[in-house]
Amino acid sequence: MKKYLLLIAGMLCLIAVRAQNSLRSVYSPDKSVKIVVGLTPKTGEPFYTAWFAGKPISSGKLGLKGKGADFSQGFSWKQTRTAGSDQTWKPVWGEVATIRDHYKELTMYLENGSGKMNIRFRAYNNGVGFRYEFPDQPLKELAVTDEVTQFTMTADHTAWWIPGDWDSNEHVYTTSKISAIDCSSYAKETAISTKHIVQMKAVQTPITMRTANGTHISIAEAGLVDFSALHLEADTKELTFKANLIPSAIPDVKSVNKLPFNTPWRAIFLSKDAAGILNSKLILNLNEPCKIEGDLSWIKPQKYVGIWWEMHINKSTWDYAGSQDASSFNSVLKPTGKHGATTENTKKYIDFAAKHGFDGVLVEGWNVGWENWFGKWKDEVFDFTKPYPDYNIDELARYAKEKGVKIIMHHETSAAVPSYERQMNDAYAYMNKYGMNSVKTGYVGKIIPKGEWHDGQWMVNHYVRVAERTAQYKIMLDAHEPVRPSGLQRTWPNWLACEAARGQEFNAWSTGNPPEHETILPFTRILGGPMDYTPGIFQIHVNQFDPNKKEQVHTTVAKQLALYVTLYSPLQMAADLPENYEKRLDVFQFIKDVPVDWSDTKILEASIGDYITTARRQKGTQNWFIGSITDENARDVSIKLNFLQAGKVYEATIYEDGPGADWEKNPYPVNIRKIQVRKGQVLPLKLAAGGGCAISLTTK
Amino acid sequence: MKKYLLLIAGMLCLIAVRAQNSLRSVYSPDKSVKIVVGLTPKTGEPFYTAWFAGKPISSGKLGLKGKGADFSQGFSWKQTRTAGSDQTWKPVWGEVATIRDHYKELTMYLENGSGKMNIRFRAYNNGVGFRYEFPDQPLKELAVTDEVTQFTMTADHTAWWIPGDWDSNEHVYTTSKISAIDCSSYAKETAISTKHIVQMKAVQTPITMRTANGTHISIAEAGLVDFSALHLEADTKELTFKANLIPSAIPDVKSVNKLPFNTPWRAIFLSKDAAGILNSKLILNLNEPCKIEGDLSWIKPQKYVGIWWEMHINKSTWDYAGSQDASSFNSVLKPTGKHGATTENTKKYIDFAAKHGFDGVLVEGWNVGWENWFGKWKDEVFDFTKPYPDYNIDELARYAKEKGVKIIMHHETSAAVPSYERQMNDAYAYMNKYGMNSVKTGYVGKIIPKGEWHDGQWMVNHYVRVAERTAQYKIMLDAHEPVRPSGLQRTWPNWLACEAARGQEFNAWSTGNPPEHETILPFTRILGGPMDYTPGIFQIHVNQFDPNKKEQVHTTVAKQLALYVTLYSPLQMAADLPENYEKRLDVFQFIKDVPVDWSDTKILEASIGDYITTARRQKGTQNWFIGSITDENARDVSIKLNFLQAGKVYEATIYEDGPGADWEKNPYPVNIRKIQVRKGQVLPLKLAAGGGCAISLTTK
Repeated sequence: MKKYLLLIAGMLCLIAVRAQNSLRSVYSPDKSVKIVVGLTPKTGEPFYTAWFAGKPISSGKLGLKGKGADFSQGFSWKQTRTAGSDQTWKPVWGEVATIRDHYKELTMYLENGSGKMNIRFRAYNNGVGFRYEFPDQPLKELAVTDEVTQFTMTADHTAWWIPGDWDSNEHVYTTSKISAIDCSSYAKETAISTKHIVQMKAVQTPITMRTANGTHISIAEAGLVDFSALHLEADTKELTFKANLIPSAIPDVKSVNKLPFNTPWRAIFLSKDAAGILNSKLILNLNEPCKIEGDLSWIKPQKYVGIWWEMHINKSTWDYAGSQDASSFNSVLKPTGKHGATTENTKKYIDFAAKHGFDGVLVEGWNVGWENWFGKWKDEVFDFTKPYPDYNIDELARYAKEKGVKIIMHHETSAAVPSYERQMNDAYAYMNKYGMNSVKTGYVGKIIPKGEWHDGQWMVNHYVRVAERTAQYKIMLDAHEPVRPSGLQRTWPNWLACEAARGQEFNAWSTGNPPEHETILPFTRILGGPMDYTPGIFQIHVNQFDPNKKEQVHTTVAKQLALYVTLYSPLQMAADLPENYEKRLDVFQFIKDVPVDWSDTKILEASIGDYITTARRQKGTQNWFIGSITDENARDVSIKLNFLQAGKVYEATIYEDGPGADWEKNPYPVNIRKIQVRKGQVLPLKLAAGGGCAISLTTK
Repeated sequence: MKKYLLLIAGMLCLIAVRAQNSLRSVYSPDKSVKIVVGLTPKTGEPFYTAWFAGKPISSGKLGLKGKGADFSQGFSWKQTRTAGSDQTWKPVWGEVATIRDHYKELTMYLENGSGKMNIRFRAYNNGVGFRYEFPDQPLKELAVTDEVTQFTMTADHTAWWIPGDWDSNEHVYTTSKISAIDCSSYAKETAISTKHIVQMKAVQTPITMRTANGTHISIAEAGLVDFSALHLEADTKELTFKANLIPSAIPDVKSVNKLPFNTPWRAIFLSKDAAGILNSKLILNLNEPCKIEGDLSWIKPQKYVGIWWEMHINKSTWDYAGSQDASSFNSVLKPTGKHGATTENTKKYIDFAAKHGFDGVLVEGWNVGWENWFGKWKDEVFDFTKPYPDYNIDELARYAKEKGVKIIMHHETSAAVPSYERQMNDAYAYMNKYGMNSVKTGYVGKIIPKGEWHDGQWMVNHYVRVAERTAQYKIMLDAHEPVRPSGLQRTWPNWLACEAARGQEFNAWSTGNPPEHETILPFTRILGGPMDYTPGIFQIHVNQFDPNKKEQVHTTVAKQLALYVTLYSPLQMAADLPENYEKRLDVFQFIKDVPVDWSDTKILEASIGDYITTARRQKGTQNWFIGSITDENARDVSIKLNFLQAGKVYEATIYEDGPGADWEKNPYPVNIRKIQVRKGQVLPLKLAAGGGCAISLTTK
């Protein structure tokens, strides 16, 4: 580390005595953030230092290298332009009703023998954004071979990270010092069917860190379009993260771009505490405004149930014949009574959804292709317009309409992307025909086209293409196994959610997610966009239908409720089986009540990996909902209700860990109580180990 | 060679003294062809010997190797079944009105530790077909790593071949002994932009050979679907060709197939003379019957003109702005007056087509994407529903309809196949909307998905997919730069033609095609299916618009006329510019008169690489058309008109090389004369060096 900081320090000294145009700064509106930019003498390499609260936070070299073109050195600095903006915009849905986009901007106009490159910096009060811009010029195409961007930290901070896997982000987070980053154990892990971990010190973004004095830093990406995802290679001695772009199928090439183009934004969240990271709208602000034209009323946050968890706990199967050993669907296959997506079972879920006010019913395993699909790297697997014989789609479409429920279509692609793209038009028209307006996509498997990766440019373009194409058909999108999001929900608000992290399902058949997992997700993965985590499991032990299953969800039941508030998403599943909810309708009431769209959000307290307490106001009402979760440690919480409207009486329904509750030994007890509260009052709560608390606060 | 023949001889001896079930034979209906099959003792490797006219012709081992499965040895021979067939079928279009499919069949039922494999052999009077069949069994998928099929020749025959390029078949043919096969000079050749020649002794199929006694042999493939193309690796010492399947993007894997499946047919044409090869319908007979259901009247053989040759001779450009250096189409680009596909120019061609009775007008360069497309290996290049601003498609569709002419759509993909597949539905619906019922596709460039090849399984499936999809939209297909055809026009008769060989265009900007080229094509490439060769160039020197161009077509004008008969295709272009035809309307009359669909065909004489004389009867009439071409040597031909209908008087219009004609020194003179002829008469003709003669014979 020292070497590089000395280099930077040396450059700063040297630059201080040179002409003023060798070093420029831009301050955020409230001056808490400063970005200093310059070119190294002699070698003409661009560099920056980001300051927060009077201290340098991150610094390093900047630039891109390409085939036959080098945009990392030898630059002349032709011009500098500054600008600023202070605007407020309204997301179609979100954690808050309005978002302020307030920044100062500085752009370096650089030129070298390869051509022209600009670097645009934005200083926000809570962070930094910058990107590379390639204006129109004689060079028409850049095959990017490397991005040299560095983020050199000033000390060995505590970091929350997952490995820089090119194919998966479904990993448990590690908490370690930067100097201790090492992915070796991840490379050996077997629960993730498709992964590619070859760099032992590479990590994914967002990576979030805490300094010794409590400053929080997160390095992230915003607006990932037509480029490969930004991962980071850690130099654990120099404490430097270097941009690590995911490869393409072309040897040595990470991304091919036609000029003019801009890279996605590189973003640094900066906050004096953990809550500030969650309050930041940095990534959304760095994204482009909504590109869907016309009426947007068809885009609706929603809660759903579905035929899904029952496959994970071995009650039923995705495939028709109840086994995965047939080579392809044919008339020889006979159902064995284990198939989940039958007409009858779907009607049961529709009935349940209608009775309890859910918007949608997800049905997985409805279409031909689930025979012998897994891990095969096959071109042609699924047919997206051909139901199994025991799934009467005409009747179900009619029945769902009659009951006022929407069937959510499922499109598992097995990562055979060209096959899906060939069928997209037909598949979405088929959905339109049957009145289905939401699709869950899936990319389980090695990517076809072969040589491409889940996080590479090819797939990045595919995910965006699906968002665009579904929007044309007025279809909402929930992508599973894509690259982690980077705020594109602002541009494509029909793209409600992604999985793109380790979700609930791992609790059904792997070592699972440790109790701290959900206290880390909001600070890392969810900074980029909503996650379809699928909370709401009441039957914590998953041996209900398969006595051989020893797994359990690492939670109390009360914590499952709290997740609907702490894990923000406009798309929330009640993931357990209807029969498990029917047994505890009193507890289930919270899931029925909790909304999925908000006009305001307060992070009441947060410590990464330890606990989060979040309060959110339901859009269009004065009702508030609170979720509080803890890791494996029990915890006492005091909630000060100073966010309530003055003068109103609220009925608080508190769902808390019951007597003796403990995620491991006794996850089931939930105590439900109702009290009346007012603004300013303090609510003391007790969270069990691995537990949580959910509260609804309603007023007239 | 000797070693292997001795091995085979040894096996035959050995087998002769073993039990009868160790060796089986099947004879063709007239006994001229015999196939002997067996298993090697001890190692259980299947082998065959094909006999013709009492002599062994080809022999070798049989089988496939896969990942974790070996279907090449250790077999038990469980059962043998024999069968036969004698049926007549009518092609939708063709060289003849009816085709007889007459064969005897023997199937070996084999089993080893990997599973079951059958080998089905068919003995025709003029050839052999065999394929591997994998019935339903516990093994569900086979990742084929190698095909061991051998074709060991009995002597060092003369062969006509092109290199086993994985990406291109646009090569000049070499005539050499088998022992002299060497692709080194092809590997260095630069006229073909996308090629991949890495095996110096690999050749493509069909490869055609002549033995010392004049027997003709061609090794070919029929019904190439869901498999990689069959090339051959020559062992120039052993005179053995071994199957050489084109790789896929998966290391070591050539083709991935779900069981049950059958491989394409491996075919050996056998004939006592060259003409017999051309008369054979072996490949068509080995293909599946038509799969397009319902009315087929929308499928129509056709002649066309188009905006195409003018780009090759630098009169105009494909791209809007008249240069290939812009990165993408945008409003900044300004036309320079060089763009070919303008509304005005297209109307000129429509007028010409209407005036002279052509069915179609091909327009290349009409759509956005031709900026900076070439050699870029880009994902997204062309937009197939977006015309350039100077191409008024609404007006042109109206105008073409008024004139009774069809505009032929052009879809150059630059081999960015997923991009094309994403747009297929929209593009074909767009064609339907504008009344366009024929499409010419193009695959110039390195294949995307990266790692795949023009001749590999992925692309083979794509080409078939396009044929299927276009059929759904009642669109006829002409594929350029695909794998060479294998008779699939029987199954998909809307697939009128392919390029898939070195066409006329090479004469415009390369060393060109030698005068013998068109005398080899029918014996090799065209055995698999019609070629869109684009004959009919009248302006032999191509410096008409660019004085720097030194190239010329290697032909006389009369030979250009003869090609419409000798190079069979239901889709024939009159490739030259309207203004060049307008100057010689008397000569042009033959191109106007010559039909593109036939009820009968007679190969009057043929010698590969030297000359061909072909007579064909126009479908639905008693009119005959004759084409006679020669290589670089002048030639006297005597045509015996014994195929004409007895008792009728025919008016023969003879278009022959005029005084002093010579392809190199004086290609232009054409003498046109009319005479009356009757059945049995002999017509003496003189063909100039590189020349030809075309004759129409009409009767009432």
